[in-house]
Amino acid sequence: MKRPDKTTTLTTEFDIYVDLPSTMKGSHLSRNLEVVSEIVEEGVREPVESLEALSSDIARRLLERHEYANYSEVRTVADYFLERKTPLGKRTTERYRLIANAEAERGNPLIVCKSIGVEVVGMTACPCAMETIKHELDSQGKLRGTDVPTITHNQRNCTRVLLEVPEGFDVEADDLIDLAEGSLSAPTYEILKRGDEAKLVEQAHAHPRFVEDVVREILARLLKRYDNLPDEARVHVTSESEESIHKHNALAERVTTFGELRK
Amino acid sequence: MKRPDKTTTLTTEFDIYVDLPSTMKGSHLSRNLEVVSEIVEEGVREPVESLEALSSDIARRLLERHEYANYSEVRTVADYFLERKTPLGKRTTERYRLIANAEAERGNPLIVCKSIGVEVVGMTACPCAMETIKHELDSQGKLRGTDVPTITHNQRNCTRVLLEVPEGFDVEADDLIDLAEGSLSAPTYEILKRGDEAKLVEQAHAHPRFVEDVVREILARLLKRYDNLPDEARVHVTSESEESIHKHNALAERVTTFGELRK
Amino acid sequence: MKRPDKTTTLTTEFDIYVDLPSTMKGSHLSRNLEVVSEIVEEGVREPVESLEALSSDIARRLLERHEYANYSEVRTVADYFLERKTPLGKRTTERYRLIANAEAERGNPLIVCKSIGVEVVGMTACPCAMETIKHELDSQGKLRGTDVPTITHNQRNCTRVLLEVPEGFDVEADDLIDLAEGSLSAPTYEILKRGDEAKLVEQAHAHPRFVEDVVREILARLLKRYDNLPDEARVHVTSESEESIHKHNALAERVTTFGELRK
Amino acid sequence: MKRPDKTTTLTTEFDIYVDLPSTMKGSHLSRNLEVVSEIVEEGVREPVESLEALSSDIARRLLERHEYANYSEVRTVADYFLERKTPLGKRTTERYRLIANAEAERGNPLIVCKSIGVEVVGMTACPCAMETIKHELDSQGKLRGTDVPTITHNQRNCTRVLLEVPEGFDVEADDLIDLAEGSLSAPTYEILKRGDEAKLVEQAHAHPRFVEDVVREILARLLKRYDNLPDEARVHVTSESEESIHKHNALAERVTTFGELRK
Repeated sequence: MKRPDKTTTLTTEFDIYVDLPSTMKGSHLSRNLEVVSEIVEEGVREPVESLEALSSDIARRLLERHEYANYSEVRTVADYFLERKTPLGKRTTERYRLIANAEAERGNPLIVCKSIGVEVVGMTACPCAMETIKHELDSQGKLRGTDVPTITHNQRNCTRVLLEVPEGFDVEADDLIDLAEGSLSAPTYEILKRGDEAKLVEQAHAHPRFVEDVVREILARLLKRYDNLPDEARVHVTSESEESIHKHNALAERVTTFGELRK
Repeated sequence: MKRPDKTTTLTTEFDIYVDLPSTMKGSHLSRNLEVVSEIVEEGVREPVESLEALSSDIARRLLERHEYANYSEVRTVADYFLERKTPLGKRTTERYRLIANAEAERGNPLIVCKSIGVEVVGMTACPCAMETIKHELDSQGKLRGTDVPTITHNQRNCTRVLLEVPEGFDVEADDLIDLAEGSLSAPTYEILKRGDEAKLVEQAHAHPRFVEDVVREILARLLKRYDNLPDEARVHVTSESEESIHKHNALAERVTTFGELRK
Repeated sequence: MKRPDKTTTLTTEFDIYVDLPSTMKGSHLSRNLEVVSEIVEEGVREPVESLEALSSDIARRLLERHEYANYSEVRTVADYFLERKTPLGKRTTERYRLIANAEAERGNPLIVCKSIGVEVVGMTACPCAMETIKHELDSQGKLRGTDVPTITHNQRNCTRVLLEVPEGFDVEADDLIDLAEGSLSAPTYEILKRGDEAKLVEQAHAHPRFVEDVVREILARLLKRYDNLPDEARVHVTSESEESIHKHNALAERVTTFGELRK
Repeated sequence: MKRPDKTTTLTTEFDIYVDLPSTMKGSHLSRNLEVVSEIVEEGVREPVESLEALSSDIARRLLERHEYANYSEVRTVADYFLERKTPLGKRTTERYRLIANAEAERGNPLIVCKSIGVEVVGMTACPCAMETIKHELDSQGKLRGTDVPTITHNQRNCTRVLLEVPEGFDVEADDLIDLAEGSLSAPTYEILKRGDEAKLVEQAHAHPRFVEDVVREILARLLKRYDNLPDEARVHVTSESEESIHKHNALAERVTTFGELRK
């Protein structure tokens, strides 16, 4: 994938669909793989512009190849790595996931609808337990006017943003990752020395968030950051926390449009 | 499975192995399933004593049925549910996993070696970040003599204990679950109202534990609780935390014998 | 779950959702678990009628408990076992999955919409390779008038049917399993002696099916078997084969209504 | 990874272990990630020679960095792609997995033990059902002297070979993949047109194999191909078939040494 200032090699998974008219017994499935194969080979010679351009291209060629189909869909997911700095400035390489979906519908002209998404693993700290405990400590006279941060449960969180990007608009994956990661209580890092670990824990406790808060925060930031996107543009946000105090996860999700968000 | 005071229905998964002498082309695989099927049917009429008795029985019958084999192995895993009380006394049903392995070796007499194990999901709070932060707050003069608990990262933890139980000895699964769950920073519960949530978070912060601590604690408790087990009895403990500050997990593991532990 | 002539114990997984109005910061998540817990306890005293009745009941009580929510959704999946007979009449216990979803929408009266589904693992044999090979053998004069079955690739297949069941209608899970299993090239069995294995392979080759065929066959049978279901009743069928000649799977899917099917 | 005639970018997963003396409370886990990070950064500047060299290097540096540890272990797995030709000569890109493990033990000199492995997805056709059916057709007088291939069940198979490679010996991953893939009933391909599909199905039926056969075939080929490996070299082979006639898989496994194989 080509990004403004770099070319990266991504290992990518594809899910591919075409519709089948009632007059056909089965699909020519090998054509799906031929299309992917062609594009991969072309990509070896010249880098593709983006994962979403790749998906759109596959969706378009699927309809050329399956002359009996009126609809095609391509979903791609790829691991993606960015260099980050820890709170104290140490360099570390962090893993993200890129998502790019494309749907093509036969017509004149052929319509291609594409979405770009990211998956970010970070941290949430629970505001509810924090408040309950703070109130309890206060009523027991233990706080004595200090403002030391109050304990709470915190956990690994996986958040996913998927944004429809109409023709003529442009959304950078790195931007979307920054936006999602910044909406959590704190990011996570692969390498953390003691001082960094302490700073990160403090950062998470300074920004306690429910999964519901994370989803709301992301939607608010999307609206501000991509204010030129049309009302019809769909957005899908999910945030899932591996609750450290439960055996089950907590999940918040919203599927909406920019028009709805603007109300 | 029959427990002292109750009969429970468990959905159980089996992995089944027999060795194959060089003179045979392939195994009669259907015999494996016949043995399981027989035992399941007998179990419908009369409850089996325990998951490990079931595994041993299957391992023994596998050698009867596969007359060409000298070794058989059975690994079973089952979901298991116990009623628990939250810190403030509310009843909740919690999920655990039971493990029972059996190996049979042909001989006169036939030797069967069985292990019983449990898997427990709980919580760990990190002692290292807690100490660093406490020291920092103290050196900044923020503690002012209070003893409010210090923040740290905490996370869901999955801990597994597998214990070889020689013929004539008896280990109750419920005991083993208590022992493992009590070695974590805190248990987890499916239902927690606010007050319970606060108490649980405090409990976890009062017992900060690395995964290495959890493994050591379990081994120490096993040695004390089952002090009649012979030196040869093997034990295998793993503890894995879904580190909330990292994208990777931390895992500690020890495979040893009671003899080694006694040194 | 209570079935006409038997009571079964099922280990069940729940996914539970409620919507959240913009005026609320977060959901009272513990209430979800309380509702499940209540119903599970009641079920210990008296068996529940069906998995879909259980789901509907949870969806309804979620709206009672979360007075701020207007929508709730419950998805349940449970392992399920049926006694079957192999082609030569041997008894075997086979594993299936039951699915029951319920959505409740606040209103006067409150609307509950429920779906029942099953997942069946069976076998598909490819009609395309069979035909190509038969034609080839024929053109080489190798068939010599015999009608021995022609080789093809065959594989494990997982098929899922989900059917909306409006108030006042009744669909038995066992019926739905029979219908789905009968639409594959052949069922699969846990225990098969040689003679049974041969018969099953012959059965699969006598009914070669693409995943597209499986979906179509199921839809045709549903329409006939449940001809009293209203036009609005939704149905969702997916069939996925672990293609033995490829590293990827083949999947066919259709989401439609009985009204559409009747056209 | 550098191969004779090409440089490839691999996305690699690492599992990393060090032992912990009884005098230490916990491990300095961040050091593990620092080692990986260093090596990854060096690899950006200059390609690493092989995945096993990378693993050995990490294992060695782990002992340098964890001065209290006496043992370290590194397990790496990476997706790997090779260009293949289908039976009729069409080019296709196929996915494999590379495995490289390394164990280092402190001493003078430090001992590093490394293993290289591959995972191959292919196809097995069952010899047992084929024989039963052939015998049956023959006794019914249906064969009439034809030699058309007999039907049987066939399925996707995943086979894994792990080979200890002592210092001074060299094993190419591509060779190992060829050896394992060639021991199955047939390879699998992502793209197959009709003619290719037919040829592949015929190839699989011409080489019916149990999972036990696959393991034996691989061991025999390893012994011949790497006849210079010393008696102590360990080898671990597993072959697992997703049996199309069952809901469970069939697995064969052998852990042995070249010395044992030579007997």
